[in-house]
Amino acid sequence: MKGKLLYEGKAKKVYTVEGNDAQLILSYKNDATAFNGQKKANFEGKGKYNNLIAAKVFEFLHAKGVATHFERSLNDTEQLVQKTNIVPLEVIVRNIAAGSITRRIGIAEKTVFDPPLVELCYKKDEFGDPVINDQHALILTDITEKELQQMKETALTINGYLKEFFLSVNLTLADFKLEFGRNANGEIVLADEISPDTCRLWDTETGEKMDKDVFREDLGDLLDVYDKILKRLEAAK
Amino acid sequence: MKGKLLYEGKAKKVYTVEGNDAQLILSYKNDATAFNGQKKANFEGKGKYNNLIAAKVFEFLHAKGVATHFERSLNDTEQLVQKTNIVPLEVIVRNIAAGSITRRIGIAEKTVFDPPLVELCYKKDEFGDPVINDQHALILTDITEKELQQMKETALTINGYLKEFFLSVNLTLADFKLEFGRNANGEIVLADEISPDTCRLWDTETGEKMDKDVFREDLGDLLDVYDKILKRLEAAK
Repeated sequence: MKGKLLYEGKAKKVYTVEGNDAQLILSYKNDATAFNGQKKANFEGKGKYNNLIAAKVFEFLHAKGVATHFERSLNDTEQLVQKTNIVPLEVIVRNIAAGSITRRIGIAEKTVFDPPLVELCYKKDEFGDPVINDQHALILTDITEKELQQMKETALTINGYLKEFFLSVNLTLADFKLEFGRNANGEIVLADEISPDTCRLWDTETGEKMDKDVFREDLGDLLDVYDKILKRLEAAK
Repeated sequence: MKGKLLYEGKAKKVYTVEGNDAQLILSYKNDATAFNGQKKANFEGKGKYNNLIAAKVFEFLHAKGVATHFERSLNDTEQLVQKTNIVPLEVIVRNIAAGSITRRIGIAEKTVFDPPLVELCYKKDEFGDPVINDQHALILTDITEKELQQMKETALTINGYLKEFFLSVNLTLADFKLEFGRNANGEIVLADEISPDTCRLWDTETGEKMDKDVFREDLGDLLDVYDKILKRLEAAK
């Protein structure tokens, strides 16, 4: 059923589906990249973890009634999704300060944001995915003001669900990044992936980093950490 | 009446006023800086132009009923102002794309923003005055959400007045930067300066740049350009 390669990103390949214009196949790669692609490595088996963990997250969000592009896992590294046109924005929700925000505006690591902080970045590699404001987002994309507000509200709703989801497996959700896409009906739905590549997850008891920061900061064996997360999620089922 | 030096910035020195805690004296320097201080030069006489042009702008805004820190010019390079605690934000209003926004998010130079685009930057040299959103501004400063909205609305109101003011002397206002301060009554008022250092002004007929871009981009004699602006404003009186 897999058709032609439509697009290859840093972490996934996107294929058409033979005879079905409304769906796509996402094929998770083994590549890890960080700092806007400046740091790169390949981890045999990583694609499987991202695919299977993302599938668990999307299934959980579906059960909560969140509209997403996810249809189902096809195999260890691939998932079937609704075709969407990705809105070129990263919607970042921060519960606790970590990563770029500490370097960019000097907020101390581990500062708690209450209410959670929502940031928009313009998804454009050549500009390094810059932080933008709402007005920039309306100028740079085709979304309406109402859709933008809905995306931000949905991101906060998802934050509430994901905090609960990860806490149930002893993980604290420090922050995460979402992308949205416009589907064939013109609706904006959650797209892309949610995984330890796109979330900061800290062991709730030890504080140990259990996400892509292990790769960014050379803290240990990335696959080992992703395996632990998948096992915790499987055990929780 | 000039007391002790309180603070020296890139473009101005700030002095206390003997026996008056409610006021300050701003002394305009001859220095020009650009690109977050990376490019610097000294132009004998520049301080006079900034002071006298800023005074004309503040007097015009007062006549329009805008609350500012400005009291009066004291001499060629100094002005008496109300003492305020500066809110560490730059409020930028853009009518036409130029400068950093073209490099940062790739909006083509001369793109018209309708409605005008309002940006906030965090005034912090060590971070390069990064663009932030409203939520960042509330985290990084002591202003309330209502005060932030008022600052943004005031900036747009000032934009309307300044476009009219400069157009009357054949200058198109592409963009400008404002700073606000909290005065002794706790009110947020317009502070800092408004001058060709903080505005992009283009000759309405020829398109010639008549502002600090002449220095940034090595386009000609900065003092000659500032002198032309002051003469136009004086002739318009």
